[in-house]
Amino acid sequence: MGHRTVFTALKFLLATTAVIPLVASAAEAPRAGMIGFGPASEQAQRALEAKFDAQLNAKDLRGWMERMASAPNHVGSPHDKANADFILSKFKEAGWDARIETFYVLYPTPKNVSVEMVAPTSHKATLTEGPVAGDRTSTQVADELPAYTAFGGDGDVTADVVYVNQGMPADYEQLARNGVDVKGKIVMARYGGGWRGLKPKLAQEHGAAGCIIYSDPADDGYGAGEPWPKGAERPPQGVQRGSVLDLPVRPGDPLTPNAGATKDAKRLTKETAETVLKIPVLPISYGDAQPILAALAGPMVPPNWRGGLPITYHMGGTGAVKVHMVEQSDWSLKPLYNVIATIQGSEFPDQWVIRGNHHDGWVFGAQDPLSGNVAMLAEAQAIGKLVKDGWKPKRTLVYTSWDGEEPALLGSTEWAEQHAADLAKKGVLYINSDGNGRGFLGVGGTHSYQKVVNQIAGELKDPQTGVSVLERQRARADANAYDKRGGGDAETAEAAAKGGDMPIGALGSGSDYTPFLQHLGLASVNIGYGGEGDSGGVYHSAYDSFDHYIRFGDPEFAYGVMLAKTAGRLALRTANADVLPVQAGDFADTMERYGKELHKLVDDGKKRQEALERLLKTNAFKVAGDPTKTVVPPPAEGPVPPIDLAKLDAAITKLKTSAAAFDAARVAGQGAVAPAQLAQVNAILAGADRTLLTEKGLPGRPWYKNVIYAPGLETGYGVKTLPGVREALEGKRWDEANQYAGVTAGALEAYAATLDKATALMKPKVTH
Amino acid sequence: MGHRTVFTALKFLLATTAVIPLVASAAEAPRAGMIGFGPASEQAQRALEAKFDAQLNAKDLRGWMERMASAPNHVGSPHDKANADFILSKFKEAGWDARIETFYVLYPTPKNVSVEMVAPTSHKATLTEGPVAGDRTSTQVADELPAYTAFGGDGDVTADVVYVNQGMPADYEQLARNGVDVKGKIVMARYGGGWRGLKPKLAQEHGAAGCIIYSDPADDGYGAGEPWPKGAERPPQGVQRGSVLDLPVRPGDPLTPNAGATKDAKRLTKETAETVLKIPVLPISYGDAQPILAALAGPMVPPNWRGGLPITYHMGGTGAVKVHMVEQSDWSLKPLYNVIATIQGSEFPDQWVIRGNHHDGWVFGAQDPLSGNVAMLAEAQAIGKLVKDGWKPKRTLVYTSWDGEEPALLGSTEWAEQHAADLAKKGVLYINSDGNGRGFLGVGGTHSYQKVVNQIAGELKDPQTGVSVLERQRARADANAYDKRGGGDAETAEAAAKGGDMPIGALGSGSDYTPFLQHLGLASVNIGYGGEGDSGGVYHSAYDSFDHYIRFGDPEFAYGVMLAKTAGRLALRTANADVLPVQAGDFADTMERYGKELHKLVDDGKKRQEALERLLKTNAFKVAGDPTKTVVPPPAEGPVPPIDLAKLDAAITKLKTSAAAFDAARVAGQGAVAPAQLAQVNAILAGADRTLLTEKGLPGRPWYKNVIYAPGLETGYGVKTLPGVREALEGKRWDEANQYAGVTAGALEAYAATLDKATALMKPKVTH
Repeated sequence: MGHRTVFTALKFLLATTAVIPLVASAAEAPRAGMIGFGPASEQAQRALEAKFDAQLNAKDLRGWMERMASAPNHVGSPHDKANADFILSKFKEAGWDARIETFYVLYPTPKNVSVEMVAPTSHKATLTEGPVAGDRTSTQVADELPAYTAFGGDGDVTADVVYVNQGMPADYEQLARNGVDVKGKIVMARYGGGWRGLKPKLAQEHGAAGCIIYSDPADDGYGAGEPWPKGAERPPQGVQRGSVLDLPVRPGDPLTPNAGATKDAKRLTKETAETVLKIPVLPISYGDAQPILAALAGPMVPPNWRGGLPITYHMGGTGAVKVHMVEQSDWSLKPLYNVIATIQGSEFPDQWVIRGNHHDGWVFGAQDPLSGNVAMLAEAQAIGKLVKDGWKPKRTLVYTSWDGEEPALLGSTEWAEQHAADLAKKGVLYINSDGNGRGFLGVGGTHSYQKVVNQIAGELKDPQTGVSVLERQRARADANAYDKRGGGDAETAEAAAKGGDMPIGALGSGSDYTPFLQHLGLASVNIGYGGEGDSGGVYHSAYDSFDHYIRFGDPEFAYGVMLAKTAGRLALRTANADVLPVQAGDFADTMERYGKELHKLVDDGKKRQEALERLLKTNAFKVAGDPTKTVVPPPAEGPVPPIDLAKLDAAITKLKTSAAAFDAARVAGQGAVAPAQLAQVNAILAGADRTLLTEKGLPGRPWYKNVIYAPGLETGYGVKTLPGVREALEGKRWDEANQYAGVTAGALEAYAATLDKATALMKPKVTH
Repeated sequence: MGHRTVFTALKFLLATTAVIPLVASAAEAPRAGMIGFGPASEQAQRALEAKFDAQLNAKDLRGWMERMASAPNHVGSPHDKANADFILSKFKEAGWDARIETFYVLYPTPKNVSVEMVAPTSHKATLTEGPVAGDRTSTQVADELPAYTAFGGDGDVTADVVYVNQGMPADYEQLARNGVDVKGKIVMARYGGGWRGLKPKLAQEHGAAGCIIYSDPADDGYGAGEPWPKGAERPPQGVQRGSVLDLPVRPGDPLTPNAGATKDAKRLTKETAETVLKIPVLPISYGDAQPILAALAGPMVPPNWRGGLPITYHMGGTGAVKVHMVEQSDWSLKPLYNVIATIQGSEFPDQWVIRGNHHDGWVFGAQDPLSGNVAMLAEAQAIGKLVKDGWKPKRTLVYTSWDGEEPALLGSTEWAEQHAADLAKKGVLYINSDGNGRGFLGVGGTHSYQKVVNQIAGELKDPQTGVSVLERQRARADANAYDKRGGGDAETAEAAAKGGDMPIGALGSGSDYTPFLQHLGLASVNIGYGGEGDSGGVYHSAYDSFDHYIRFGDPEFAYGVMLAKTAGRLALRTANADVLPVQAGDFADTMERYGKELHKLVDDGKKRQEALERLLKTNAFKVAGDPTKTVVPPPAEGPVPPIDLAKLDAAITKLKTSAAAFDAARVAGQGAVAPAQLAQVNAILAGADRTLLTEKGLPGRPWYKNVIYAPGLETGYGVKTLPGVREALEGKRWDEANQYAGVTAGALEAYAATLDKATALMKPKVTH
């Protein structure tokens, strides 16, 4: 899933994680050794990891990918089931206790889809991508579904067209300023600027009758590089498929909220399922978008709306263009095949370290998701060998290969909902990956895991440059800041320049961590490599193929092995640690930064409201506007009432103190705390992140219960941190902001209190 | 001249003036009345201006433009001479003492020019633009010169091609980082980023054998709007002509530096003229650029190098493409016809207020320059009527219509050089305009004239909105700042929000003020309207025609009349003022801001050098780079030595004090100073700006003597303020920076001392 970003295939790196200006806490200076381990256990762990590494073989990954990407493997396809069976067999072969857990979900597949311009001239979009020289699987057109977006409504519409840029809230403000509305019309949006599914959702909210989404070549085509097969980028006939379910409200099967979609689960109807759209939505290629966009009249678009087609972009809406679109889907339930494999923990079988990657693709899915899936399989095979050689993890390892991630995180969500009670008790950490590629390590996740991730990155050697993965991250941040003349993320660059820890991003959505992190409150980390080459150039297209991946993804599978080393280490260390490898100070520092951002949001919002009031009073928008054009001023806003962040500020201050005390006790206590107390400490830490949930959930979306990390309601995949407060401030819902400032403060107080409990258990042994 | 900027035809507004974050000095609160006038003289002046306005008639302007734009009017063309004769007749008709002053200058015209791709495929560029429906003069192809750039060298070259983006210094740094060099190759640069003439100059310095410049449609074509004749923008076959003489070193006839190019002047040869390029340079259309650029291989360009053609932009330089270019010119001397018209001052005949606009175009020149020229003619006619009715200006008015501005500011420069001694004694103010259009007032100039310009803008009513021109400027700045969410020029926006004076820009080059301001040290102001409609869409093209102007320029000539009212008022007020209408505080405040910018430049330069040193030491560029590509780190720089700005800081502090004292004395003394002393004050003020010259000139370009305002050596038209210091700092020439900090401090001290003299003469009468 993720979304296609220019210049990187590492989708979660830029897509689902916030910009990450956290400077690692330099104040605390822990023992230089492995976090969570005493000297003796560290030595054993290092030996174990060396054995683990020795099992990893790039050729395995290549072979598995070639096999699994040999036919379309979307939910419900024969090859999706075959892949699940293959993955199951690999787990079993490696000695895991493995099974397929099946769910039955609403997943519409296209029966009849078409997009055709009927005026001023005729042009019918091709919704199949077709064969391309050098891409062997591209000839299997008969086995593919036509290009579509899952969970658009059924419909048959002929209407005028409005180009809405990326179809985000600011774009609708711009349309209003130009006197253009979309009621009863078909909106045409380009990809980018926010998650795909928001485009039709906002279109529907604004009264549109249909929604077409296309890949503009400026962002995703010849603007990014030579198109496939000459280069890696999207060719004129390439289409980006994807989900348009209302994921920021709730992922998973739309018919079974909060419950596993088992055969006999209670189900809503499609009509009562709030996350299913009502209007038809279809994706088209830029080759097919061009004649429609070229024919539009109406106001010229502002410069940031222009794409890369050789035309003048207009907003349309004048009746000059009519498009006929049809979408009819098969709405029957489809089976999901999750593969679940377990190795029981020797000491703490009821503490689960979970590792997952999905296996379903939109078509062949070589990069997304198989590049990550084969790395995970390599880990599983290597771990199996360690177990065969007599090793046992202290905690239980649960390796999972999810089905149905693409349409709506279906497999992971249904499994998480089905096993919610167990997971709430036993879940320690969820480690996710998805597509993978050549280049740099990108990590997002719960910030208490920032240190362990940095330690792992510091120990692993980058296969291309020979320096550590961490050094390479730092070099990029530092050199980029120089080349961008201070542009970019100054705090990350500063950390890099000082040789400090590289901040990890906060997680929004777009992959399978969401149910674990944001619904159940498990600490989660998402990992992948990318940023060089460009296997993302054919994101969610039939050309995301094995042949493409071995030219432009990770030709040697060297970074597939790196992903296995990285995620495998994180799983093994978390499973084996004396004390769970968390550094609370990193989490506290990050919360402090987020708190400051909220204050700035309040201050900026006030200033902006005052400016708007003045401008409306002086009629400045009209006076400054071109009188030959339609100029509509923005609507007035009321003044910003007092926003009370004091309780939240105090909670963050308390958290900082508690975190510092915990980290100090953890370092001082290493190897010196009695096993029984350690077990208590670990049990407390394993559950610590559950304090960050609120039972009532976030405003308007009760399924999302984490008050620290959430996907934005108006960004889709992009994260909103402290979302209850932040989104209320952004949306000018002042009462809600004040209310959630209290809720969020309460959660952070509870987290701090949990740390205090752990600290108290570690301290006595040290001082006596 | 100027350059083509997207979304505005107001070329000098964005092209030749710096961004202008000066907040007007709010501390001083002068009498609300007209600056430079006592109450009685103000009343008379207002009556005079009302009479002046009554003479202005949009129909006159339209008729004159239609006539003058009816045939190609470049230097040496029959219609250029006919236009000079026509202008002369209009001046004479209006009662001015007018004559044509002729010079003979080197001005090469194309005899044989061609650009042809010869490999991998064949494509010949069309250097004629051809007829277009609805553009009546576009059929006169036989009378036009082919598209060319004046002052490129003769040559016949076949070579590999390198795309150099805009061909500016940072672009060559980027090429070097990618391991691409241009030695012996033909560089292909798109317009934009800096003045046209720098592109071949830098190409030549880097060893290129030829230079092709094209208009990219992202900036100048369908990206900016629908192409002509459907819309205003450049069509695929449209070419931008222009000068490539080395203007930042010296404008004017290349053969007669510092002297008027009279018939028998001493002349250099073309070969010894340092401002003439050696390599051939030709401009082509985007229609003709596309096949060449599409065929290039080599490294992908960075995102900010991408244009709007539907191709993947590469740097080239691999030998994949060969282009054959030929340029042979007729290098004979050509005549220039400056029209000079005078009305003798009644009280101070030896104080000259000069007003100018050129009359030569590249082809038909409707917008550039005739839209400004007809406004100036309207002023002259109105003033003639006032004189016929018995009025006389106190000071001498000199109205000028220059020839040969387009190739190299030839007419104005030769006239200024020819009359340098007189001008140094008698010049008070030079008021310039060039092309004009519909929209907003844009002003650049000597900052002591900021107040009078603001007063005039505050009194004139905008014809479209009915508010004052000043209110409209403020509304735009204020509303833009809101819409750009704090982007743009915050200080101007703040001034606008507070209802303060709108800052005027500093002048670089690109029009006829340069010899007056930057060679002779006359206070200068450049004025024009624009920013709505887009007559600049066909800048320097055969389609800059009357038919284009009346659709997309200023269809009603309402803003032509506004230009006449604005420039006319400035001329009349300066000619009639009791005390020359200068507010020294505005100049001093601006210098203070520039001084702060220099400090920031030093600080940023040090930080950047330190960062580079660290990055080279850690090998970060290589480590961060993609190992499958060529990655070359930037070259090392030595540490920044101490830069001594203390003397300059002190001079600015002194200037602030002297300026405040002068402004206070001016306000207090209005109407109270004896005529003889007033005359002395005015004589002092008239010469004050000459203190800002340094005899030795700026580093490497002795012709430019003004140490406050200069066009940038590496920007061309764009201004560099305090240029001796600023450019030395930017170029890391530390000794030069220290040296010119002293020179500049000396100039500002001398200026302050001049103010003190004037203040002393005004004060006694007030206090006794």
